[in-house]
Parts: sequence; C-alpha cells; structure tokens
Amino acid sequence: MKLRLVLVEVEGAVNLGFIARLVENFDVDEFYLVNPKASLDEARRYAARASHRLENAVITGSLRNALEGATLRACTSAHYSRGRDMLRVAMSPWEFAKRAVGEELVALVMGRESTGLRRDELSECDVLVTIPASEKYRALNLSNATAILLYEIYKYKIIKAGWSPRMPPDRHRVELLLKYASHIASIVAGDRAYDAVRALRNLVSRAGASAEEVDSLLFLFSRIARRLGGPWKK
Amino acid sequence: MKLRLVLVEVEGAVNLGFIARLVENFDVDEFYLVNPKASLDEARRYAARASHRLENAVITGSLRNALEGATLRACTSAHYSRGRDMLRVAMSPWEFAKRAVGEELVALVMGRESTGLRRDELSECDVLVTIPASEKYRALNLSNATAILLYEIYKYKIIKAGWSPRMPPDRHRVELLLKYASHIASIVAGDRAYDAVRALRNLVSRAGASAEEVDSLLFLFSRIARRLGGPWKK
Repeated sequence: MKLRLVLVEVEGAVNLGFIARLVENFDVDEFYLVNPKASLDEARRYAARASHRLENAVITGSLRNALEGATLRACTSAHYSRGRDMLRVAMSPWEFAKRAVGEELVALVMGRESTGLRRDELSECDVLVTIPASEKYRALNLSNATAILLYEIYKYKIIKAGWSPRMPPDRHRVELLLKYASHIASIVAGDRAYDAVRALRNLVSRAGASAEEVDSLLFLFSRIARRLGGPWKK
Repeated sequence: MKLRLVLVEVEGAVNLGFIARLVENFDVDEFYLVNPKASLDEARRYAARASHRLENAVITGSLRNALEGATLRACTSAHYSRGRDMLRVAMSPWEFAKRAVGEELVALVMGRESTGLRRDELSECDVLVTIPASEKYRALNLSNATAILLYEIYKYKIIKAGWSPRMPPDRHRVELLLKYASHIASIVAGDRAYDAVRALRNLVSRAGASAEEVDSLLFLFSRIARRLGGPWKK
C-alpha cells in the first residue's frame, strides 16, 4: 500500500513543520499540499530533520487534483454523525487502517485548523475517518490528529511485516530456564515447587520475554543451582 | 483505570501547550510537570480551550514524587534494545494500552525533547514503551508522541465501554431491506437474483452499515419495488 497525505489549506507553520516530520517518521510515500496558507519557510524551523519533505511536497490548487489516482480517499473530521447525515457517517482510525493496508494508493485528507473540511470536500472522499475523543473537547490539534492516523496505518503495515519490539527467545532456552527453576525448587520449595515453576512459566509467556531477558534469568538460575548443589540432570 | 501524564523537564512552550490540549482531548486524570523548562505562560497560547489544564498541573521537583501512588509506571523512549540492555527492553504502545486498562493508576512518563529520559529515570519505571517509526527518522516530536500514546489508551478504554462511531441498525430493518432487494431482483435479475442480494448483504455486514444508511437504502428500494409492482409479500 502507498500512502498520500493531503493537507487542505493548512494555516499554521508549526503544524506544517511538525507534519513534515511525521511524514518522514512514518514513511509516507507522497505529501500533497492544497493551497497552503502557512509559510513553508517558517514551517522548516519545526520540521527538524525532515525539511526536505517540505521542499519535495507537491503543491496543488484543488483537492480534486490531489486525489487523482487514489484507490481509497479518506477525509477526516472531528464532527461525525450517528444519525441522518450520510456525509458524516464515520469510521474509526483502526477500522480505517485495517481497510487501508489492502489498497493500492490511499489518500488521507486533513482539513484546515480553523474550519476543517467543507461538505463539498467531504463529498470528494469515499470514507470519513474520525478520532474518538472526549465530548468535553473533541477537536485535536492538526499535527496531533495527523500523528495518530499515520501511526495507526504504519502500525498495521509493520505488524503485517512481523515487527516486534523484542527479540523472541529460543524455545530451548526458555525450557532450560524452567528446568533450572524446577531443580532449584525441588531442593528449596517442597510441595510448593510446582506452583513456583508454573508461576515463572506464566510470567515469561504472558510478558513476551525477550531472548536477553530469558538469558539473564538463565544465568542467575544456573548460578543458584551451582551453589545449591544437588543432582542436576539436564 | 486512572491515568497520570508526567512530563520531565519539558523544554518547548509549543509542545507543552499542545500536550495540555491533549490532556483535555483524552480525559487524562492527572497532569504532572517535573521541573518544566518551558514557559507555562507562553504554552497557554498553544493550549487552545485547555489552558486550565496548565493552571491545574501539578509541578514537582523530582520524578520520584511524580510517580508516587502509581500502580504501573511507564517510561517512553525512541531508543529501545532488542539485545542486552535490560533497561531498554520495550513494549509497543498497543501492548502497553492493553496492559494499562486493568491498572488502578498508570503513570506515563515523557522525556525531554532534546535528550529524552536518563537511565536513572528509566530505572524508576516498571516498563519502557516505544512507538515504532521509520529507521530513517525514529524520533517523534514530543507532542505527537504523547498524542499517539494517549490515543491508544483512550481507545482501549472506550472500546471496553462499547463505543462505536456508528449507530448499529436494527436487525429487522436489515432483513426488510434484503427482502425488498430479493423482491426487486426476482423481477429484474433472473437467475442472477440470488448473487445480487447476497452481494448487498455482504456489503451491509462487512461495512458495519449504520442505522441511517440502512434506512436510506430501504427507502430507495421500497420506492423501486412500488414502481416495479409485482406480488409483494412482507
């Protein structure tokens, strides 16, 4: 899936700069600006190491041009309807992300800070996406809303690609750790030995222990076993 | 679950203001600032309708104070380790959110814009959370990172509470719509009638059609049926 981020008449230079940085953070493929009102020069100060994303942005005069070629066009708004307004029947960011990953080219359209997207703009899109937020204050800052939506899409992409923050442990190392634990428990824990070892297995499994976490505990337990002595069978 | 957001030595007034707004957007229960370096007065300009969250923020001199009473303490960083560094074994935002909702009081700790959290600060936390991002540029802007993490937690809270962006349709209205469709199809679609009606049922179900979407189509189909005539049995 390719992703095109489209900002319609973005007004704030801080937001524009922050969003250019997000475009780089989340590997967005195409970055379009429809009639930007903010100064691109000023925005550069807020883009940190992603100011080239501003220089390479495609600037267009109309939303229609910015949507060309997209196979799924998603508009966004804090205002959605659970009632009669068909243009404002919305989907959640996670529903959208799951749908989007299968598409060829997704256009994600973010509106003005002040007034969002007009109804004629909403009608150019296939779906409306809304971010759930407190009824006390539903409207998110533009760059924060963009961050959340880009994150959701990026997340589904990398989960599909098998990303994990931790290196999973070798199955045999986990079993060896539990064998050491059994050995130690049989010496010191009497009839509560089984429970203690099972508790350790539960924690390792439920926490999704990393390879190095398992190895660190394995080292500790092997040292304990050596101190305690007793008949060790591997 | 109650959520306490803790910013450690926040440096930028824009970020601080944007984050105060997020605190309101996502119903954060407690907002703590450890030695803020940014001007709270300047931050107010960026907090929009949430400047009271700045006035009511708890200001402390140490991270330890800010963590008091929390049942799960989560530090955050763009830098995580899939290897030997036990302090930097991380969990993803969605793993964290799922874990957090069952806790009594969760403290979420965000570091400085320039240098993040120090190792002695990381060691005060129970877990480390990292947001996946492009290897080309992993570091997110502070307010955007905060937006993503608050959103993930808020999402699990409202999903648990049964939130949906759409009002689900009455089962009987869906069946009536499909009955009209069957009637019409039997008149005009010959031996492809079954497929057409099944296709409509697929779309309504897979899209999670809203009550009003179903009613709009029901109105259309009832009008078509009336024009076509034929023996209608409800």
